[in-house]
Amino acid sequence: MDILSPDSTSAVDEDQSPNLSRRGFLRAGALAGGGIAAVALAACTPSASAPKWTYGPAAAAGASPVAASAGASLAPAPSAAPDHGASHAPASSASPAIDHDANAAAVIKRFLDGEATKLPLANEPLKPRVDGDTKVFELTIDEIDHRIDALKEPVKALGYNGVWPGPLLSVVEGDRVKAIFKNNLHETTGVHFHGQRVPNAMDGVPHITQEPIQPGASFTYEFVARTPGSHMYHSHHNATDQVGRGLLGAFIVQPRDPALRYDRLNGASQDIVWISNDTLGGFTINGRGFPATAPIVARLGETIVIRFMNEGTMMHPWHLHGMPMRVVARDGYPLGAAAFTCDTLGVNPGERWDVVVKCDEPGAWAFHCHILPHAEGPDGMYGMVTALIVQDKAAAVSLASAGAPAYECVIPTTG
Amino acid sequence: MDILSPDSTSAVDEDQSPNLSRRGFLRAGALAGGGIAAVALAACTPSASAPKWTYGPAAAAGASPVAASAGASLAPAPSAAPDHGASHAPASSASPAIDHDANAAAVIKRFLDGEATKLPLANEPLKPRVDGDTKVFELTIDEIDHRIDALKEPVKALGYNGVWPGPLLSVVEGDRVKAIFKNNLHETTGVHFHGQRVPNAMDGVPHITQEPIQPGASFTYEFVARTPGSHMYHSHHNATDQVGRGLLGAFIVQPRDPALRYDRLNGASQDIVWISNDTLGGFTINGRGFPATAPIVARLGETIVIRFMNEGTMMHPWHLHGMPMRVVARDGYPLGAAAFTCDTLGVNPGERWDVVVKCDEPGAWAFHCHILPHAEGPDGMYGMVTALIVQDKAAAVSLASAGAPAYECVIPTTG
Amino acid sequence: MDILSPDSTSAVDEDQSPNLSRRGFLRAGALAGGGIAAVALAACTPSASAPKWTYGPAAAAGASPVAASAGASLAPAPSAAPDHGASHAPASSASPAIDHDANAAAVIKRFLDGEATKLPLANEPLKPRVDGDTKVFELTIDEIDHRIDALKEPVKALGYNGVWPGPLLSVVEGDRVKAIFKNNLHETTGVHFHGQRVPNAMDGVPHITQEPIQPGASFTYEFVARTPGSHMYHSHHNATDQVGRGLLGAFIVQPRDPALRYDRLNGASQDIVWISNDTLGGFTINGRGFPATAPIVARLGETIVIRFMNEGTMMHPWHLHGMPMRVVARDGYPLGAAAFTCDTLGVNPGERWDVVVKCDEPGAWAFHCHILPHAEGPDGMYGMVTALIVQDKAAAVSLASAGAPAYECVIPTTG
Repeated sequence: MDILSPDSTSAVDEDQSPNLSRRGFLRAGALAGGGIAAVALAACTPSASAPKWTYGPAAAAGASPVAASAGASLAPAPSAAPDHGASHAPASSASPAIDHDANAAAVIKRFLDGEATKLPLANEPLKPRVDGDTKVFELTIDEIDHRIDALKEPVKALGYNGVWPGPLLSVVEGDRVKAIFKNNLHETTGVHFHGQRVPNAMDGVPHITQEPIQPGASFTYEFVARTPGSHMYHSHHNATDQVGRGLLGAFIVQPRDPALRYDRLNGASQDIVWISNDTLGGFTINGRGFPATAPIVARLGETIVIRFMNEGTMMHPWHLHGMPMRVVARDGYPLGAAAFTCDTLGVNPGERWDVVVKCDEPGAWAFHCHILPHAEGPDGMYGMVTALIVQDKAAAVSLASAGAPAYECVIPTTG
Repeated sequence: MDILSPDSTSAVDEDQSPNLSRRGFLRAGALAGGGIAAVALAACTPSASAPKWTYGPAAAAGASPVAASAGASLAPAPSAAPDHGASHAPASSASPAIDHDANAAAVIKRFLDGEATKLPLANEPLKPRVDGDTKVFELTIDEIDHRIDALKEPVKALGYNGVWPGPLLSVVEGDRVKAIFKNNLHETTGVHFHGQRVPNAMDGVPHITQEPIQPGASFTYEFVARTPGSHMYHSHHNATDQVGRGLLGAFIVQPRDPALRYDRLNGASQDIVWISNDTLGGFTINGRGFPATAPIVARLGETIVIRFMNEGTMMHPWHLHGMPMRVVARDGYPLGAAAFTCDTLGVNPGERWDVVVKCDEPGAWAFHCHILPHAEGPDGMYGMVTALIVQDKAAAVSLASAGAPAYECVIPTTG
Repeated sequence: MDILSPDSTSAVDEDQSPNLSRRGFLRAGALAGGGIAAVALAACTPSASAPKWTYGPAAAAGASPVAASAGASLAPAPSAAPDHGASHAPASSASPAIDHDANAAAVIKRFLDGEATKLPLANEPLKPRVDGDTKVFELTIDEIDHRIDALKEPVKALGYNGVWPGPLLSVVEGDRVKAIFKNNLHETTGVHFHGQRVPNAMDGVPHITQEPIQPGASFTYEFVARTPGSHMYHSHHNATDQVGRGLLGAFIVQPRDPALRYDRLNGASQDIVWISNDTLGGFTINGRGFPATAPIVARLGETIVIRFMNEGTMMHPWHLHGMPMRVVARDGYPLGAAAFTCDTLGVNPGERWDVVVKCDEPGAWAFHCHILPHAEGPDGMYGMVTALIVQDKAAAVSLASAGAPAYECVIPTTG
């Protein structure tokens, strides 16, 4: 039985999050795969005679009958050797690790079941209004209730257009941009387009380049987008507090020359914004903590771009399992001959780094901050953890029709 | 009235810091500008019928009559559009942000009024005595009272020649150097020329390469300056404590070939040392915390070099608004093909990074550590913040004759 | 008297660590030198009429008769000028620095006397069993008592094969590798080959790619070593805790093409693994804190490679005195045109950096983390400090026959 097909009626659908598990790893219109994800989800099928679920490839789950029966046919051959043996050993029932393992497994189950789809998507592009030769973005600055995780109480936060991170603003080099911010807070603020070269009066530093934006007032930032690359917009007023509470978002300027955009230059079919923070709400990626962080899902052979942006107060070294990252730009500026390859990339506060990943190895690959206390605690992984799911074409099942949401924004290359 | 001309008699001169506000942004002999700075200072003119001062370009200050009248003609056209509107909105008098804003504005006023000129200049070059083929520097190691900020009580610190950072020592590659340190402390010490290749006995690590320098004693470090670039000298004895209290300074070795010096190689007309610390006295740049940090002042079109040096215990990512930094050397070694461009540069303890900035955009550009709690608190900006003031030639007013001090040392290219 | 010759009978041998001081700086089979080390050790010779010991070159120790007489002839000429004077000054007996200095000197004496040789060597290569075309490594995962320093109580730690760091696993690109881990802990675990490209089921992330390895059970990781360079293996299960307690080791994959290995490519005659941690046991290099850290010992003119690996939770900027580091690879990937030279290299958690050092300056060169509180405290240097001892050929004395242990592993270039 292919429980991943849209019309399947697996018991998973009867739990309190119907339709979530099946779309957990999918991006609408961009994916037609199911490989490793299929294995994981297949293992969710309940069974009275077996543990309720087991993740991972069939090999590791070999001792778990239900997983083996459900997942065996989908498991990639190279990793299916049955003799690695972890699950052959009996668990020590007196082990103090039992609670850790149960909790650790539970959060991973939530992640793989699509926890991220229970919350609004991050970094959704905001479509500008076109006024003559100008792209006009209208945003509000709001007090919001923000959930780091659907199971946790919301935190009192701030957001642009009600979300943290704020909407993705994407334009093309040379565009005339007007960004109107209406301040709905009970405090003053100012908005800095970090990394963008603007006239001084548009720099958003209250008391130096402008008056603070009063509660109820608006301010219009107007400039020509002259600095291509990965940039940000965020508060530059009482900023430790205001950025810490969520006043931050991505500002992407596509190069005017289409040949220089990642889809053409690197053949990238996904272009993903990854904003981290480490203040209110703890260790977050795009405003969520594991297991509510969104996985990146790619087809085997696909090339993706990730734009790391650090809006927190600490350096975070991002470690991708399984595949290296080719680091091609820093703060929006192409590295050229200084480009390099790595698997762990330290990103300091305020920096942006663009990396290209060739997804040439199928599987669910952990992707996390390698300051381990930012990623794992006594109850399992949390905070700055997600995964890159590379789906094997051989096992691909098209789920686009299931209405799966896009986990990550795809940045319009045309602005 | 042009209150910036040397013979002006604005009311500003009657406050307790006469002559300071007018020279706040100026470097003797190196500047002939007043553009943005003029706007800011113009706004200082008191008026019974208006807020006492308003900073920023005329556009943002448009609602403030005095600022508008005094500054309008100097405001750069591109940023003067009157419809951005922050100050059009009434302030919410009940807002909890009022205190923040008042305090935040007040510290910025102090900065722009030239707070840094109230304290001794940092990184002043020490002229060596020439003894045959040797350049001899004589320094003392002292207990000092050091002010991070003129309004704060001095801290009990340490300094070379009585200052923190110690005097700038600048030589030319191949020079024979003799640096005599007289220890006036009540404790032992040792001086390490960090980054310089010296004979082992001159390395300044007590108990390994020499005996500690006793109270009252002197030690002579003698070597040929063979490692060009940005280096440091500091205590290497009980160093967490002694460097933390101020025993640190810059040691610059100009390349023997003049064509390789920044003035020739990059056309730089300013060469600025930027030493950060984060221990005694908090977050400092060249021994001062904002608003007592010195701004960097450049004319529009000028190229400057900044040499970041970290003598603290934390990485600091320096973010320059408005213009990118071209990073050309690391620890004194030219990066060559590995050079890169960025707007945020993480500098780890012990590292030195040389960057070139082409000052091609007029205005007052914030320049700060992007670990926000190192730069801004509930009472506004503090600590690791300064500004790059780029003065528009069109509005330039020569103030060189006013005897304005150099905020930053200009490193002699001839040693 | 040459107290460094194997048949010397200096009083040093009568203390509680016989044979240690004489072999302190030596690597079996790789060294035939004694230059600076000789000076230091010579100074250990007790004398009723002099301070019991004085370190450093003869110049600095000039005021100490025993050191002068023992060491003068060995001191390198350029640093032997007798007029630098630190020890000419009387000590201030009332100085609060006395205790600091006595303690600081004592730990340095312990270091230079070969403290590291009192404890098992780190990073010892584990010879694989060859099974057909496969290299088989058999490891246990153990609870251990681990000493950061021979004078400190052991800490309750974890280790692979009973040691922290675990044994060095070295293979050649293209090798088929089987690593069998037997879990002797009372808790579950999993092993991740960090940086190595493996099939997903071999990635070692419990609950995602495999079941946790139960107490008493084994798990076999099997893959083709396809990613050359400096990599690691460590726990990826409850990892903040398990890696923090010592479940970590180096995994080196030599390039298949011998011309690309450091011995051929860079002429390196030593290839040294440097794993840092900053959790259990404090600030450590290869599982030891200063003075129990092993010095690196090289002959004058020798080229060495150091592979920095950070298994801790903080960035550490490694600063080498005396000679620059040429940084040639990051996370195992050659930097190519992005290679650079520096003397201070920040290494973030999870990162690996390979550097080449041309040992062209004789002496004992401090080598430490430049976050000073990780390296020096009120009682002198501790934690993340070691030294690069470059032995002058002119003073070389062959001690290979004294059975001196290798402080650092030399990585087999043939796997």
